[in-house]
Amino acid sequence: MALHPQKKVTASTSSPLETLSARLKGDMAAVNAIVLERMQSDIPLIPQLAGNLIAAGGKRIRPMLTLAAAALFDYKGGRQHKLAACVEFIHTATLLHDDVVDESDQRRGRASANALFGNEAAVLVGDFLFSRSFQLMSEDGSIEVLRILSDASAVIAEGEVMQLSTANDLETTEAQYLKVISSKTAALFAAACEVGAFVAGASPERCAALRDYGANLGIAFQISDDVLDYAASEQRLGKSLGDDFKEGKMTLPVIKALSNATTAERAFWQRCMADERQEDGDFAQELAFMRKHDAFNASLADARKYAEKGRAALALLPDSALRGELEALITFAVERDF
Amino acid sequence: MALHPQKKVTASTSSPLETLSARLKGDMAAVNAIVLERMQSDIPLIPQLAGNLIAAGGKRIRPMLTLAAAALFDYKGGRQHKLAACVEFIHTATLLHDDVVDESDQRRGRASANALFGNEAAVLVGDFLFSRSFQLMSEDGSIEVLRILSDASAVIAEGEVMQLSTANDLETTEAQYLKVISSKTAALFAAACEVGAFVAGASPERCAALRDYGANLGIAFQISDDVLDYAASEQRLGKSLGDDFKEGKMTLPVIKALSNATTAERAFWQRCMADERQEDGDFAQELAFMRKHDAFNASLADARKYAEKGRAALALLPDSALRGELEALITFAVERDF
Repeated sequence: MALHPQKKVTASTSSPLETLSARLKGDMAAVNAIVLERMQSDIPLIPQLAGNLIAAGGKRIRPMLTLAAAALFDYKGGRQHKLAACVEFIHTATLLHDDVVDESDQRRGRASANALFGNEAAVLVGDFLFSRSFQLMSEDGSIEVLRILSDASAVIAEGEVMQLSTANDLETTEAQYLKVISSKTAALFAAACEVGAFVAGASPERCAALRDYGANLGIAFQISDDVLDYAASEQRLGKSLGDDFKEGKMTLPVIKALSNATTAERAFWQRCMADERQEDGDFAQELAFMRKHDAFNASLADARKYAEKGRAALALLPDSALRGELEALITFAVERDF
Repeated sequence: MALHPQKKVTASTSSPLETLSARLKGDMAAVNAIVLERMQSDIPLIPQLAGNLIAAGGKRIRPMLTLAAAALFDYKGGRQHKLAACVEFIHTATLLHDDVVDESDQRRGRASANALFGNEAAVLVGDFLFSRSFQLMSEDGSIEVLRILSDASAVIAEGEVMQLSTANDLETTEAQYLKVISSKTAALFAAACEVGAFVAGASPERCAALRDYGANLGIAFQISDDVLDYAASEQRLGKSLGDDFKEGKMTLPVIKALSNATTAERAFWQRCMADERQEDGDFAQELAFMRKHDAFNASLADARKYAEKGRAALALLPDSALRGELEALITFAVERDF
């Protein structure tokens, strides 16, 4: 039979995320079934609101990491499915809580779950999913898994609060930014990888290597995300650009552009980011300043260093096709344009 | 040496809550130390916001139940202290999330943590405390404790969402109200008692009896709370009356007053509770309708039935001074005027 050369071309041009999705298709279907089953409740608003967010999809990169980590050690059991669902629930709860809007934000008219259902409902459904995650862990029965994921949850909350504290603060340093993203993003990537390796019975050294890979992937992914919030083609990202700018969020490209800013530029950043008094044309102006100081390339250069560290962590493991795909994923996390 | 008769008089006139507090003073000090230590974080806003709420005190009735349940079985270990702190953290997180205000609410100017620090911070610090609770459980190391407390957390969230769904809905039934308070309040009272008995090594039957006591105490306590929100002396409650009325919360006295309402009264409830169009004098008018239909006494009569069930659950245990104090506590939960 022919190899369907056209299909082959499609496959070879697919992203590493698609390649991994294809490899882990059966596992992901099992995870999705658990997610759908466990977001159910007698209280109709819960599946309605949670389903709205979960159906929207997203990349599902975190649960996929748990599955990939387990597969990397040839795990044949089924524990990784429930734990990947735990990871997805924690992530979904975080999204719901992250979008909680104060009065001033609400005026900007974000069409989040919070805008649709109200802050209170979004927060409480987030709590429900968070609790569901810990119920699933109790069913899994491992205190070590509970330790890994409850530690990650606490660190995520700390990162989110720190991000709130540094918003609008032009003095925010690169070190503070790194602490924020290491906490709010990389902690769950790391934990997702670690629990996958752990249930597969990997040695402590290999669990640590997977954790290390996840943490560096998370940092690289978030830096790239923060660059894309300014620089992506609006169409490909599927969401409006400049959200971070509007919120005065101190991300890496801003910090880099600020570090070399002239007095006039600094006054501009002060007005737009610190005072949040933005006018038409500010976003274009700010992009011009970023390009002038090469802030996007400098940020992505940093991201590439973390990608390199992540690949180095994987090098501790035996070579395999899956390992190669995880290496490709971390490169993709930086180089993607959506 | 004399028995300090004056002290004795003070003790005999103190509330059952004070008697229990005095008995468990050393244990409560240990719990408070854990709470203070574990709410710390490198991110200053976290202890600042959490401390604000925790310092405000409250009755600390939930952690005390864990301590009392463990003491009832002569437990000599120290696990109950961490677990009582877990219970207190879950409760504090719930309070922070329960107070999340939407735009319309914020105008009423509640001086909650949310009003002081903003919705986002309050939600994220709630998440932090919630995560801390699960970290403490991982340190304790019992999957059964995790099961009890994660089940309670999920049920609490369901109860809170259901309460949101029934707000402003004049068709809310007593059965729905009971489901709401069984979930949002009684589930944590029950779990607090159960984990105390469990770590003390009580038999499954006795753990179930304690759980039963806690659940009935929680229902009785919440019905009384809902009556007091209308009927308490403002000075003794230490908070303004009528919050439930302002929010259109369908509590038992409202449901009872509605069930016998005339057409004119129903129109009044429709305007005030369903449409939330309230005018000066409405609160006094609504109190008059409640008194006319004896809604407070009818509600408290229901609460007394749950108190009776709670006392019956305790009757399965050997008689002791502490058991007597827990019996007195459930009576006090209904009969208190603050």
